[in-house]
Amino acid sequence: MKAFFEPNSVAVIGSLREMMGTAYWLMKNLREFGYRGAIYPINPSTSGEILGSRVYPAISEIPGPVDLAVLLTPPAVTPETVEQCAQHGVKAAIVISEGFAESGKAGAKLQHQLTEIAGRTGIRIMGPNTFGIINPASHVATIAPWLDHLNIKAGSIAVCSQTGSAGPHQMPIADWGYPVSKMCDLGNKCDVDESDVLDYLADDPETKVVAMHLEDVKDGARFMEAACRVVARKPLVILKTGRTDAAARASASHTGSLLGNDRVYDAAFRQVEAIRVDSWQELWEIPKTLAYQPLPSGNRFAIVTFTGGQGVIATDAAIRAGLQMAQLSEDTVVKLKEVSPRLGNNPVDVGPAMSDSHSQSAQNPFNALEKAIGLTLNDPNVDCATITFSTGRQIVPLYPMVVGMLQNLIKNAGITTNVWIYGTDLAAMDELARQLHSCEIPAYFDLDMAVKSLGSAAGYYKYLAGKSPWLVTR
Amino acid sequence: MKAFFEPNSVAVIGSLREMMGTAYWLMKNLREFGYRGAIYPINPSTSGEILGSRVYPAISEIPGPVDLAVLLTPPAVTPETVEQCAQHGVKAAIVISEGFAESGKAGAKLQHQLTEIAGRTGIRIMGPNTFGIINPASHVATIAPWLDHLNIKAGSIAVCSQTGSAGPHQMPIADWGYPVSKMCDLGNKCDVDESDVLDYLADDPETKVVAMHLEDVKDGARFMEAACRVVARKPLVILKTGRTDAAARASASHTGSLLGNDRVYDAAFRQVEAIRVDSWQELWEIPKTLAYQPLPSGNRFAIVTFTGGQGVIATDAAIRAGLQMAQLSEDTVVKLKEVSPRLGNNPVDVGPAMSDSHSQSAQNPFNALEKAIGLTLNDPNVDCATITFSTGRQIVPLYPMVVGMLQNLIKNAGITTNVWIYGTDLAAMDELARQLHSCEIPAYFDLDMAVKSLGSAAGYYKYLAGKSPWLVTR
Repeated sequence: MKAFFEPNSVAVIGSLREMMGTAYWLMKNLREFGYRGAIYPINPSTSGEILGSRVYPAISEIPGPVDLAVLLTPPAVTPETVEQCAQHGVKAAIVISEGFAESGKAGAKLQHQLTEIAGRTGIRIMGPNTFGIINPASHVATIAPWLDHLNIKAGSIAVCSQTGSAGPHQMPIADWGYPVSKMCDLGNKCDVDESDVLDYLADDPETKVVAMHLEDVKDGARFMEAACRVVARKPLVILKTGRTDAAARASASHTGSLLGNDRVYDAAFRQVEAIRVDSWQELWEIPKTLAYQPLPSGNRFAIVTFTGGQGVIATDAAIRAGLQMAQLSEDTVVKLKEVSPRLGNNPVDVGPAMSDSHSQSAQNPFNALEKAIGLTLNDPNVDCATITFSTGRQIVPLYPMVVGMLQNLIKNAGITTNVWIYGTDLAAMDELARQLHSCEIPAYFDLDMAVKSLGSAAGYYKYLAGKSPWLVTR
Repeated sequence: MKAFFEPNSVAVIGSLREMMGTAYWLMKNLREFGYRGAIYPINPSTSGEILGSRVYPAISEIPGPVDLAVLLTPPAVTPETVEQCAQHGVKAAIVISEGFAESGKAGAKLQHQLTEIAGRTGIRIMGPNTFGIINPASHVATIAPWLDHLNIKAGSIAVCSQTGSAGPHQMPIADWGYPVSKMCDLGNKCDVDESDVLDYLADDPETKVVAMHLEDVKDGARFMEAACRVVARKPLVILKTGRTDAAARASASHTGSLLGNDRVYDAAFRQVEAIRVDSWQELWEIPKTLAYQPLPSGNRFAIVTFTGGQGVIATDAAIRAGLQMAQLSEDTVVKLKEVSPRLGNNPVDVGPAMSDSHSQSAQNPFNALEKAIGLTLNDPNVDCATITFSTGRQIVPLYPMVVGMLQNLIKNAGITTNVWIYGTDLAAMDELARQLHSCEIPAYFDLDMAVKSLGSAAGYYKYLAGKSPWLVTR
């Protein structure tokens, strides 16, 4: 699997016409992503140089070893091209091209040939019908479509999907400042499957959390084993779609794979202690808190809000997420009441204290906020917390101060904390989220999601603590 | 209630210092929102003119009638000030000020005085502890905080909350292009409560959908009656928080009200056929499809996607939302296959057709998309549909073409349709949503939410059709 994610050399095979979606465009993206290994464009009907690399007519003509071949070839010639790669000693091949099992019988036959070649020669094949992989640390990206920008942030979340929609050509990964350790799209899974990737990610030191989208599982026993290896070391968040019979039929029609009963999957995910999520949104959002923050050593939750109504909503969300509302310690209550007599409960509603002209905070409402957050996060009865923050265009100039304050408070307290952002201006909200993410503070626009992510983290801690408590440090 | 939402004259009582959160600032916002009725600032220690309006020392000095008084007075003097308003014949008063039942015993006593005044004199009082109301059609907004902008779009959704967070000073209502008919925050409900507002909104011709956030219900019997009146004419979407005991306690601590068992509420909402939602996000998002689109005359759902994986996710969401996957008619299947042999199923995955260079769409991938959407929406077996659209920075120049195409297709087909937007650039996504909303096409960033809103619409149609089928036209 290392040849896929950390290749020293890449051959790109396919059309070198300067248009989107071709081997040319993939090469262009790969270069722009900063890949420093050798790149060999391959096309029998082109010669000279493309983007500074000499074009070869075939893999066999390349003078040195090739770790990874990326194919954007017509389906009919793809098996023989992969065969040539295998003969040349190429370790891994990504077949980007569509037109295999998902397209009908003829395509299924071609895909079967790929499987046969992998089994016989030992070359590993990802796809077909995939966008391939991304590894920001090694500057590898096998993306053929047009991209807004490729400044994907290197981070600790591995996103592995069974759909092309999970790539940076379809998702605002750069705009979010989403912390990626690895991405891959398994596509039709002619050879490499979810278990191979899980095995690799279990040992990958850059990956702290694995987020996986699955439509089916190829080999249940292998999957269980690989998933267990992952979960013993890092949380595994799974979106398994095709839960309903209707969806299972839809899935079969586009991947050509058969799906099992959802209850079987559900039991399996429970057994390996994976975190099963229900929506595409959750697949992306839940991992953020797991990636950026330490695990909570319990499920006692506190929330700092600007209005009481939000506190009630958060409390509902907390109970649903398996958390309990923390009972603040007497010491904290006393100190909060010094900030404002209206404080002392959890939810910690600082709105009145911030606006109350009779409180200590008369000069600067952020004083009351800072004290309330500090006291809450440092309460020994609190394991995890969500801080709410309301923003708008006029707050943007204060971001350095606000983000610095939150960073200090959260770092010093050391408990699992995230931030729920709401406000009047979408651009101001996006910008605050990016700045918080750059300080390893997970930011959410959906309060329920922020709270649910803490519930997932607490649940995972509980599992780890039960299995091998020495693994966990607060 | 008309005096609250459509006043001919407004008295604004409180500090006229030029700072955020004062009566001055509220007046400023009211003027900027385009209010054309008379505005009377009232402050005993100020004289002359403020923002072009003469300042009066007391309500009794105002020469003409006053429909609405808005109070930002200190709690201690608020009851007597409201009493003076009542004596002067003011019909309605909004008490913006905090410091009543939510703040402790002294505040509760003051609030009780307000209730007594309302009962004795007939003046209606909204609040205390509220942001008040917004009515874009009459250009009325009683907002004291700083606002990014007040260009709230006049539309057909009424949002009534029991928290200040639901206002344009806290939510990106303008940025979303959210279609507002009325907004109000009931606050502590010393007099005006949810039943009063529901009664008014049932008859309000501008309101097509009512979205209501509730922490408690003051009078169950009145509520049921008012809710029934609403639901017979327009859908009522309710977020009732405080579902869990912990949340109910949190709610009591900030509003001073007691909450009933959640199961009682649940049964009541079912009985009146309200659409109960589970999250703050849903409270805002579900109404969009109900407001912009006709009701579906059945629950047969189709989706047009760019990838198969999304189709599977949408199918799961559809079944969860009470929809069924539409079986496309033979005629549609034949015509879809003419567009591309890969088409013919629902989910209608146009991705392969758009990228397939052998299909008719070789010249312009939008041709295949347009045909596939048109055929799907016009299939007699399809009652409602979600169209997915992937965007990025490079697509923005095409928006006039894309939005025009979607507008024509959706309008001509006449079935309930919304759009799920995803993509690589958050600003490009926001912009597309705004443009679609300006054409009455509901846009979502969350696929599950898009599908769930159609489920809610189909459920509401079923109720209406069962009760009085003549009410409904396709």
